[in-house]
Amino acid sequence: MKKNILRAKLIQIFSKYQLSKKHSEICADYLIKAELIEAKSHGLIRLKMYCDRIKKRLINPRPKIKIKKLTSSISHIDADNSIGFVSAQTAINQAIKNAKKTGIGLVAVKKSGHYGLSSFYADQAVKKNLIVFCFTNAPPALAPHGAKKSLFGTNPICFGVPTGKVPFILDTSTSIINRGKIRRAHKLGEKIPYGVALNKSGKITTNAKEALLGSQLPIASFKGSGLAWMVDILSGVLTGSSHGGKTKDPFDDFTGPQNVGHLFITIDPKVFVGLNFIKEIKKNIKIVKKLPKAKGFSSILYPGERKNKVYKKNLNKDISIPSKILKEMDELNAI
Amino acid sequence: MKKNILRAKLIQIFSKYQLSKKHSEICADYLIKAELIEAKSHGLIRLKMYCDRIKKRLINPRPKIKIKKLTSSISHIDADNSIGFVSAQTAINQAIKNAKKTGIGLVAVKKSGHYGLSSFYADQAVKKNLIVFCFTNAPPALAPHGAKKSLFGTNPICFGVPTGKVPFILDTSTSIINRGKIRRAHKLGEKIPYGVALNKSGKITTNAKEALLGSQLPIASFKGSGLAWMVDILSGVLTGSSHGGKTKDPFDDFTGPQNVGHLFITIDPKVFVGLNFIKEIKKNIKIVKKLPKAKGFSSILYPGERKNKVYKKNLNKDISIPSKILKEMDELNAI
Repeated sequence: MKKNILRAKLIQIFSKYQLSKKHSEICADYLIKAELIEAKSHGLIRLKMYCDRIKKRLINPRPKIKIKKLTSSISHIDADNSIGFVSAQTAINQAIKNAKKTGIGLVAVKKSGHYGLSSFYADQAVKKNLIVFCFTNAPPALAPHGAKKSLFGTNPICFGVPTGKVPFILDTSTSIINRGKIRRAHKLGEKIPYGVALNKSGKITTNAKEALLGSQLPIASFKGSGLAWMVDILSGVLTGSSHGGKTKDPFDDFTGPQNVGHLFITIDPKVFVGLNFIKEIKKNIKIVKKLPKAKGFSSILYPGERKNKVYKKNLNKDISIPSKILKEMDELNAI
Repeated sequence: MKKNILRAKLIQIFSKYQLSKKHSEICADYLIKAELIEAKSHGLIRLKMYCDRIKKRLINPRPKIKIKKLTSSISHIDADNSIGFVSAQTAINQAIKNAKKTGIGLVAVKKSGHYGLSSFYADQAVKKNLIVFCFTNAPPALAPHGAKKSLFGTNPICFGVPTGKVPFILDTSTSIINRGKIRRAHKLGEKIPYGVALNKSGKITTNAKEALLGSQLPIASFKGSGLAWMVDILSGVLTGSSHGGKTKDPFDDFTGPQNVGHLFITIDPKVFVGLNFIKEIKKNIKIVKKLPKAKGFSSILYPGERKNKVYKKNLNKDISIPSKILKEMDELNAI
């Protein structure tokens, strides 16, 4: 489907589900962006879920988002159960503003939902020449080190830096593999790799369904578990959102709003070394890229480079949509 | 050796090497602390190295540390090639002060050196009821993903949170195992585990010497490589220090000062949710601890708990010092 046609359709659907025109546009653009960077698990496959949650008012289509300015650097946002895309967009705008004014921004969001990919928001701060951290928690997927039951989300750590060229954007979950990959293996009846997930009894499994019902393993055992815990504290406990496994699964749990939390930290890199920052980061990247390559590597990429290539490759192509999702879109549009 | 006797000896040695009384005390206390938490690779084993570097004026024994206050939240410290302990102590004091005043502190340090363990400084901020990040870069040890030569340090990520009880302090290197363990295996003629390091030609090795000459592998391949890179940018590029593999090895490279950089971010958790923060973090920890345990685990510990137990266990015991180090101490004290 042509991008502009898809965009119009998505805006129409979200509008039918009572979102304002502006909010519908934000949501449409992020779903399309997920498709363009081939993060399909965060793209159109989620459209029906979002609409179902709006219909049940677990996502508030007309949120009264309150931005509480605590200092000129720090803001606290009550997203009023808005769709995550809109709360996070509000928050990153604020975090950019705060850092531009004072050198550092800290913005916490409560009562939000799944916001797509952290890199969506990091990208915007980086394009305004800021360093940025984005943290969000997520429903239980990961067993804490020493436990055999999932509790943390795949809680990503996202860090972005301007480079003068393609943004450096690290966006890494704290699980060994992404949950989307396990869902996909389940759908296709494929096995998952050994050592990435446990079944319900706490034993390693290569069966995708068992893994989804069991728990995923964190990267580097206690190290990844600690990092996932850190993200739960920063985005859940600190912001006044759900934490400790109470964040609801958007696909499976319709007993209430998700109450996801996000935290954004923005830093103006000019504060310490002025324009030298860009000169030095360019030097840094150049040095790494020139290292002798490991077997099987023809080049060394920095985080964000590969995704940027994929995005550019797909930018002027049509977006291919599986018939199942096309049908869902028609049904959602028919109300 | 009794702790107070050891402390007096260390202060005497550092004083002989021209450090002020106050700076000598800071250094003595951190070396003892490393011993007490059984992080021996960061303890007395490093004393001679510090003294050797002072003697060659690669560490400045009488630094004129300049604290440039950029805003009430942000400070930039030129540590004037001070011993790392002293620069980091100056910086964490400032970061605590800034966050207490404004809710957030950001303190960058340039021209510093190896500062021991990040948890030393995180601990102090947490005891003042602050959330804290500590970042520092280090000499080359880790091969970036796709490279077969080391460039990043084992660059730790350190994150601390007040819990109302024992501080939550995650202090994790981005390498699969700590460099100290490889050095130890080398000394004892032991093998290292498979899959944690490469030899000079980029092949996996279990030989400790080959690993030290080659490179260590990051946790979770590209994820850990990205995290190590992030730490290099935050503590090296952003602060105006060495980066991209230019940080000098304190043991092996006497061609100049190390020029390590550190970055501290402090957040007052009360800004968003007031005193509820401690209530909620306690709840969070309780939930995790109650999870069904994995095989081989009788309890689930949060980061920092184990180290705290070790510290308390050792606090009132004498410190056992290998004869080789005792001899070094006598020689250092004899000048």
